[in-house]
Amino acid sequence: MERTYVCDVKNSIEHEILVKGWIHKIHDLGKITFVHLRDKTGIIQLIFDHGAPEHFRLEMSIQATGKKVENPKAPGGIELSVTGFDVLGKAYYEKLPFEINRGKIKASLETQLDYRTMSLRQPRTRAIFKVQEEITDAFRTYLRARRFSEIHTPKIISSSTEGGSEMFTVNYFEKRAFLAQSPQFYKQTMVGAGFERVFEVGHAYRAELHNTWRHLNEYVSLDIEMGFIKDETEIMDLEEGFIKHLFAHLKEKCKAELELFNIELPVIDRIPRMELSYAHEVLLTKYGKKSPTGNIDAEGEVLLSQYIKEKYNSDFVFLTRYPVSKRPMYTMPADEDPTLTKSFDLIYKGLEITTGGQRIHDYQQLRDNIVKFGLNPDDFHSYLEAFKYGMPPHGGLAIGLERITLKVLDLENIRQSTLFPRDMKRIEP
Amino acid sequence: MERTYVCDVKNSIEHEILVKGWIHKIHDLGKITFVHLRDKTGIIQLIFDHGAPEHFRLEMSIQATGKKVENPKAPGGIELSVTGFDVLGKAYYEKLPFEINRGKIKASLETQLDYRTMSLRQPRTRAIFKVQEEITDAFRTYLRARRFSEIHTPKIISSSTEGGSEMFTVNYFEKRAFLAQSPQFYKQTMVGAGFERVFEVGHAYRAELHNTWRHLNEYVSLDIEMGFIKDETEIMDLEEGFIKHLFAHLKEKCKAELELFNIELPVIDRIPRMELSYAHEVLLTKYGKKSPTGNIDAEGEVLLSQYIKEKYNSDFVFLTRYPVSKRPMYTMPADEDPTLTKSFDLIYKGLEITTGGQRIHDYQQLRDNIVKFGLNPDDFHSYLEAFKYGMPPHGGLAIGLERITLKVLDLENIRQSTLFPRDMKRIEP
Repeated sequence: MERTYVCDVKNSIEHEILVKGWIHKIHDLGKITFVHLRDKTGIIQLIFDHGAPEHFRLEMSIQATGKKVENPKAPGGIELSVTGFDVLGKAYYEKLPFEINRGKIKASLETQLDYRTMSLRQPRTRAIFKVQEEITDAFRTYLRARRFSEIHTPKIISSSTEGGSEMFTVNYFEKRAFLAQSPQFYKQTMVGAGFERVFEVGHAYRAELHNTWRHLNEYVSLDIEMGFIKDETEIMDLEEGFIKHLFAHLKEKCKAELELFNIELPVIDRIPRMELSYAHEVLLTKYGKKSPTGNIDAEGEVLLSQYIKEKYNSDFVFLTRYPVSKRPMYTMPADEDPTLTKSFDLIYKGLEITTGGQRIHDYQQLRDNIVKFGLNPDDFHSYLEAFKYGMPPHGGLAIGLERITLKVLDLENIRQSTLFPRDMKRIEP
Repeated sequence: MERTYVCDVKNSIEHEILVKGWIHKIHDLGKITFVHLRDKTGIIQLIFDHGAPEHFRLEMSIQATGKKVENPKAPGGIELSVTGFDVLGKAYYEKLPFEINRGKIKASLETQLDYRTMSLRQPRTRAIFKVQEEITDAFRTYLRARRFSEIHTPKIISSSTEGGSEMFTVNYFEKRAFLAQSPQFYKQTMVGAGFERVFEVGHAYRAELHNTWRHLNEYVSLDIEMGFIKDETEIMDLEEGFIKHLFAHLKEKCKAELELFNIELPVIDRIPRMELSYAHEVLLTKYGKKSPTGNIDAEGEVLLSQYIKEKYNSDFVFLTRYPVSKRPMYTMPADEDPTLTKSFDLIYKGLEITTGGQRIHDYQQLRDNIVKFGLNPDDFHSYLEAFKYGMPPHGGLAIGLERITLKVLDLENIRQSTLFPRDMKRIEP
């Protein structure tokens, strides 16, 4: 007999059905026992007329055949009267690390991460990663429809690019190498290499000494780079279009998951765009909040989002015109003021989820800028090489996958939207 | 005016057209100059009636407006009589590292990799990565339609799993960590964590001291793991189905690219399955070739594929029943002979592109097997944890993305199917 997924039982035309999954709950009523079986797609009630076998334990995996019985009180309105079963995967625990069959898990996040194989079984936790998968899918679909090519660029790199010090080192045969902070140089190279529009879904590494609710040392970066642009507003338009597409996609594909988290995604129209200096002014005058020079801190992001929500009814805001001093050396200066840049961040419900902008594409200008930044052009030899052969105007952005997942579902900690998070203290499981 | 891609010029209803791209060729005939403009989608001829500007150089990027003129002799049967143009990206070279506008590039692969931004511009080289992108897309489409979930698992891991010594070490804050050889333990954990069926497209790292045409130290692994299976034949069936789907997909999406490489993909029916010991016999009796114990070497793979092609007209063959001694400790032993395993390799045109099999799912059996392999179960604490709570029977496989691309297009070196290869000597660009 072919296995039927729980979600398909109701509409199956078969009278006798084979299901497989884990024992989610056992209700022993003496003569009769109700067992809730959980598979990837849902939970179904199994009825054992003469009591369930004594060796049944929570979270064992089993298969069972049974006859369909309608029962409005059972989950999904249907149950199976069991005619046969087998244990597929035995249980070897003395006590479950925590219960997963009573709503929210009553264990700290750290404990849930220690026992990831258990915490992920909870339908609510799995829903987070269903949403995350659909975010990635929407990202790819949106871009491929616009002639973007998906690429895979190396994560082992030779030099600490972007002038950053916060990189992990790798012992690469006889050499010292680094784990890439971002595919920045490679995605730009790919634009110049004739691919024009590229994207990557890949890991990025930051050796930052932060252990906060919003930092990971290894994360998934949704990267875009696009050639032949007019300026950075085209990149912002692209991201705005993506967010629209994403929300429509999630409403369609993740209805149940969004409901589980009580999330109603808004219809996205135009995302407000605000110069950073103006945002500083708003923070100061409205909230008496001083900001660090040329940037905005975590508290500032939250307050500003509050302001934007009240004034424009938007969960998003683009901050633009970051100063040259606070952006990497490849950032294109603004036409009207060379101390500012054609760059932006996207803030979503108080959290930065994107950094982007137009890049310098002229070889000489880039070289000069590297010198201006006090760096040595020789250290950027292979990057600069890509700019010698007609590099067109281009720009791009990166979205943190775990961050956008966190905010879509209003989670509290970025580790909740990471299957196996890596932070300063954790590299297991 | 909106930019028109070269491939859309012919069917555009506009009379005047804006194109953008790189200068591929310049034919100066005195009064009149023909310039071939190359963009992501093709090449078009531009006519400059009064000669092209003197500062035009090969590979500059430009934009041009022009009027459509039919010309059967021009590439694509259409050309543009130029009415205006701008240089978008200047050229800074003295001499191009090699020519890319005359069929095959006349430079060694190493030189082409040194100047990747140039070699990738050649339409033939770009075609390789179009095919690669579609392989990944077919992989995802095929699996998602079968209820597989896409996952992202960590590449920074705490211990040298799988008993492998060939791992890169990472300096992770105060600790030593490793780069994952494969997502093996994590994808198994995800099956047990209730996701049942998962796949990942991600980097894998091997610190192997090989510098051959078929080895990379960083590559993209297409990983699958599937729960509630009967045995490893279900995994082989799944891969067989994928190859069928893949070839149909490529025929539809990569017609031009396959033609460029003179590839005609066969219709896949059933892939022959042969026990390793029988393959050894064939190699010995047909070719007088001795094989290493419990394995097959590179030469053996080539000879065997030759035999399979002649006998079964198949480019593929599954080798099964590898001995316990040559497979990792998590491999499920065969029922009929405990010295053999429920594992397989897939050989494609003389190259192993997949290793797979059923895994041990019972906690006690796995623990015992770790001991049998002379390993310490304590070193596998967090892996073993996943097996305590009803881990169902499961198995999976991994396909090397660069390897399958190489073989689909009959390339010679795996570096050709890698954008920026990493090997013992190369970590740049």
